[in-house]
Amino acid sequence: MKTIYVGLLGLGTVGSGVVKIIEDHQDKLMHLIGCPVKIKKVLVQNIHKHRQVDIDPSVLTTNVSEVIEDPDIDVIIEVMGGIEHTKNYLLEALSRKKHVVTANKDLMAVYGTQLLKTATENGCDLFYEASVAGGIPIIRSLVDGLASDRITKMMGIVNGTTNFILTKMSKFGSPYEEVLKEAQRLGYAEADPTSDVEGLDAARKMAILARLGFSMEVDLDDVEVKGITDITEEDINYSKRLGYTMKLIGIADRTGDKVEVSVQPTLLPDSHPLASVHDEFNAVYVYGEAVGETMFYGPGAGSLPTATAVVSDLVGVLKNMRLGVNGRSAVSPQFEKQMKSPEEIFAQYFLRIHVQDQVGAFSSITSLFSNREVSFEKILQLPLKEKDLAEIVIVTHKASKKDFEEILQQLNDLDVVKEIKSAYRVEGNGWG
Amino acid sequence: MKTIYVGLLGLGTVGSGVVKIIEDHQDKLMHLIGCPVKIKKVLVQNIHKHRQVDIDPSVLTTNVSEVIEDPDIDVIIEVMGGIEHTKNYLLEALSRKKHVVTANKDLMAVYGTQLLKTATENGCDLFYEASVAGGIPIIRSLVDGLASDRITKMMGIVNGTTNFILTKMSKFGSPYEEVLKEAQRLGYAEADPTSDVEGLDAARKMAILARLGFSMEVDLDDVEVKGITDITEEDINYSKRLGYTMKLIGIADRTGDKVEVSVQPTLLPDSHPLASVHDEFNAVYVYGEAVGETMFYGPGAGSLPTATAVVSDLVGVLKNMRLGVNGRSAVSPQFEKQMKSPEEIFAQYFLRIHVQDQVGAFSSITSLFSNREVSFEKILQLPLKEKDLAEIVIVTHKASKKDFEEILQQLNDLDVVKEIKSAYRVEGNGWG
Repeated sequence: MKTIYVGLLGLGTVGSGVVKIIEDHQDKLMHLIGCPVKIKKVLVQNIHKHRQVDIDPSVLTTNVSEVIEDPDIDVIIEVMGGIEHTKNYLLEALSRKKHVVTANKDLMAVYGTQLLKTATENGCDLFYEASVAGGIPIIRSLVDGLASDRITKMMGIVNGTTNFILTKMSKFGSPYEEVLKEAQRLGYAEADPTSDVEGLDAARKMAILARLGFSMEVDLDDVEVKGITDITEEDINYSKRLGYTMKLIGIADRTGDKVEVSVQPTLLPDSHPLASVHDEFNAVYVYGEAVGETMFYGPGAGSLPTATAVVSDLVGVLKNMRLGVNGRSAVSPQFEKQMKSPEEIFAQYFLRIHVQDQVGAFSSITSLFSNREVSFEKILQLPLKEKDLAEIVIVTHKASKKDFEEILQQLNDLDVVKEIKSAYRVEGNGWG
Repeated sequence: MKTIYVGLLGLGTVGSGVVKIIEDHQDKLMHLIGCPVKIKKVLVQNIHKHRQVDIDPSVLTTNVSEVIEDPDIDVIIEVMGGIEHTKNYLLEALSRKKHVVTANKDLMAVYGTQLLKTATENGCDLFYEASVAGGIPIIRSLVDGLASDRITKMMGIVNGTTNFILTKMSKFGSPYEEVLKEAQRLGYAEADPTSDVEGLDAARKMAILARLGFSMEVDLDDVEVKGITDITEEDINYSKRLGYTMKLIGIADRTGDKVEVSVQPTLLPDSHPLASVHDEFNAVYVYGEAVGETMFYGPGAGSLPTATAVVSDLVGVLKNMRLGVNGRSAVSPQFEKQMKSPEEIFAQYFLRIHVQDQVGAFSSITSLFSNREVSFEKILQLPLKEKDLAEIVIVTHKASKKDFEEILQQLNDLDVVKEIKSAYRVEGNGWG
């Protein structure tokens, strides 16, 4: 019985998990694919570093060529991260007819199309389930499970760090900076959290999901991004009071032939399934014309959950090898990319402003909305401690992004408006 | 370009959805599989009945042979229901090398193993995603997405009718009989609701899930079943008071090499993801050793959601046809079936009893538990309207099923115990 040899690029958190799962599950793998699977070479930065997994030191190498050029190796698993040089390694591996499994969302968001094309040209599989929402088999579900449906909307909590932070802010009423520090101490946030808290990590995943779900070449640049760094305790408190939960939500929405993709802090009704996704968990909510509402929930990161997705992809590659059908599963995009303009993006909005507490203030504000035919779902007015000031919280009915942004601009110019404290998108109303 | 011809057995709710989706999505299907798909023959009971879908009357037939013996037809989609004669039709179709897609859980729960074996012997695919939890791609996720993991527990809300009833009972405090009538009026429950409310429908789905998740020949007879007909408003009110939500939960649990599979009314902490699955929705919670907790949520039934799953399976068959690899995806069970005995099944329990309000009553009750080393997590004692009676509600820590059942027996024999009002399993404690 032929042994299948695998080359591993990277032996960090996920790489160690991959080694462990392949070791622990030899019996199951044997049963599924009918032959043993062995890791032959592992690219590392430092051969002598202490490892959390038992691994024969002789398989470690700091020379990438020893992995991607080894003729015995059939499959390359890439869990090293990075974009430019990693892309070159994988292109080289594919040109040598090696199948690729990657967990690298940064790479797939930027070079996914090129890599998938190269894989198909070389008759190779390129699978990347682990790149979005770690342990949740969302890519497989979009590609196979909902194959016969027309997906019109996806909403995702696809970044565990920000969900952890927002959950704690919401639960304990603590300020952002304090919770971020706690998240860093507990290992849920990096020392440099920028890519997470500014929404870039989530944007990469949404680009990948939108591409698949809408069968369209959505680029990272097409994703509008806003992070969570400006969210205050007051915003969260007012949200709660109105029955909403604050989440960093990636939205991919299709109307007719046009799409929008964004990542931004968003208010969801407490009863929406995404509102009860807590802590570092991820979830992707999918709306299909026929299937209606579905949601996929699970761990978004972590060594073993992510490694599970990687090894499941490896099983997919190996099954295809056994059947001799590698390189035929990628489907090229069906539609030309067409992004919505701001006039075509409709949503409800939450707005919190401080105004002079004087006669006519309220009506001068509301007339800005009614001039554009934007009506209100909820209004809350409260006195503030500072004399002569009031706080107004508004949830609008659906308005175009263009109208809403122009209203914000005009509010800013009004004398009675002291400050626009915050504005957020509201989604999922009408749920439950 | 060759057209692929499909034969349809049944043109009820799901069948009509299948016809509609195949019509509406010809472009997408063409893109995915590269050729047109056409329904050539449809088995119906009455050719002249008015249909909700546009279909050429000449394709309708009341003669099953015209469908399963038609040499042009490559794939049979079975959405007619029934067990014995349906099994015979499908065996005949498979022997004629026709691939089969079925939405029939009753059939798969009873004859799944035989049908899958026959399919493999004939080089045919037999897919049945729609048989469990309609629009949720749970079977695919278990087979492919979590292929590299060891699944140790599945908990499912896999019957929409009972979830609808329990949701309404919980929300409005209404009695079972009243809510059942409403569910029947709204079309969420059948005129004869037995199979749903007694838990049999859920048991069939759990047998299918357990077979796949544990790679073991679990039979329908191995599933212990209790329905929702005895649940009272009081039970639901006390559950709420203690922070629990009542659901009809299918449990498949593996410890070491042994498994248990059951369906029963179960209390879950309000914060558990399954607790917020409302109305007719379904969800399956899966615990894998590596991946940890995942949950799949969506519509469990309905014409279009179920038809989506059927057509996605059809796409799977057609992709395999294009690649020439049909009939190779079924994996025979890896393990010998070993069911847990009552001493090996551990759970927490909720118990509500009416006792004589007299000195020593409480301690004579609690000593029955402490004699078997079963301790309490929560106790609530309340006076009752009837004089000299008190109500005691207990949530135990984990106990074996054997111990708990023997305690129930002994409680029944105690003079101070007037009545054991109810006993339920409690799951998911420690969540959130």
